[in-house]
Amino acid sequence: MRDTYHDQLDAISAELVEMTNLVGSAMNRATQALLDADLKLAESVIEGDEAVDALAAAIDEQCYDIAALQQPVATDLRIIMSGIRMSMSVERMGDLAKHVAKQTRLRYPESSIPPELRATFAQMGGLAEAIVSRAGVLIASHDVTAAGPVRDYDDQMDLLHRELFHIVLSPNWPHGVESAIDVTLLSRFYERFADHAVTITKRVIHIVTGEPYATVNMEPLVSVEGA
Amino acid sequence: MRDTYHDQLDAISAELVEMTNLVGSAMNRATQALLDADLKLAESVIEGDEAVDALAAAIDEQCYDIAALQQPVATDLRIIMSGIRMSMSVERMGDLAKHVAKQTRLRYPESSIPPELRATFAQMGGLAEAIVSRAGVLIASHDVTAAGPVRDYDDQMDLLHRELFHIVLSPNWPHGVESAIDVTLLSRFYERFADHAVTITKRVIHIVTGEPYATVNMEPLVSVEGA
Repeated sequence: MRDTYHDQLDAISAELVEMTNLVGSAMNRATQALLDADLKLAESVIEGDEAVDALAAAIDEQCYDIAALQQPVATDLRIIMSGIRMSMSVERMGDLAKHVAKQTRLRYPESSIPPELRATFAQMGGLAEAIVSRAGVLIASHDVTAAGPVRDYDDQMDLLHRELFHIVLSPNWPHGVESAIDVTLLSRFYERFADHAVTITKRVIHIVTGEPYATVNMEPLVSVEGA
Repeated sequence: MRDTYHDQLDAISAELVEMTNLVGSAMNRATQALLDADLKLAESVIEGDEAVDALAAAIDEQCYDIAALQQPVATDLRIIMSGIRMSMSVERMGDLAKHVAKQTRLRYPESSIPPELRATFAQMGGLAEAIVSRAGVLIASHDVTAAGPVRDYDDQMDLLHRELFHIVLSPNWPHGVESAIDVTLLSRFYERFADHAVTITKRVIHIVTGEPYATVNMEPLVSVEGA
């Protein structure tokens, strides 16, 4: 039974990692759909979100079963209690990728973003996939010294988010109100996506160190890491 | 021990209800600060969010302790597993109230919203406090037939959110891009706030009925309820 039990715990981590891969891919494909005004790709992202939701439901069910049938303590219990929180975060990241795809579909066959902002959104899409990929590695490895780059990516994302704000609010913005709102909301979806990756990273630190989630601070890890 | 155990479970529900009251009050006070461009009130909402975060951390700790020291099953286990999810949702609602207050502070001494939209935001503030108050009652009572009004309030909120979108995108919108973005983001904070209340309601239904959260559908409850 003991082996099965640890297999079950490993399965939860493996499924969480799979979820992070799915939503990273979804956000990157949503970004490509956004850049190319590609309706078909956008719709595949929208439909694909069901698989993410199904995985989240499966993880919840498994965490529940383990808690009910076994008596997990210490790290194992933290894996379960944090597992259901992390699945909520990753599920929400999937929703954000879906929002980007829906925005693309809404404006099709027009593009939701003006040509001069394409590069910025391309960069945000890359950062989104990079940050969730790092978070996935952390879930799998429990190597908290790898948390530094997550903070780094999040800082870069925040910077791009603020830049976009300045651009759409500049007196020279030539694309009107609708476009400014589209850009602002889209930018916010990417920023929130990165925030969730930070939350997941802090939960992994909590699992590994036992430090209460509320007081986990990623700063010192960054300076240790030098990243 | 058994009595203490049930006292502990009751305490979790009571603290969740307290959190819903805090964030309902926070969102309503943030709305008032927004309407009056009241910096002092906005700052009190921003500072007050720490109490919400502290309660969320306390609930998490208690859920963890009960899971580690007792062997909760069935409904009790669902209370604990859902408790940590609900505390995440309510904490996020507190963040959204803080976002409204921060927007107010950002534009002070100007108002973030034009006079003709005051009534709509006043209504959204009222709906926000009403929906989270209903959710709080559900957490306390476990009376799932009372879920109907939550769906109802959420529908009303979505309607106002869509109305605001149309207004800022109308060719007659006279207030420029910055104001359109302010209104859109603010409106989204209220809409998300209501979404979280719906999520909480579905979790209570899951606790009471044992139905998996993923398949909980509030529609039939509304028709039973007639609300």
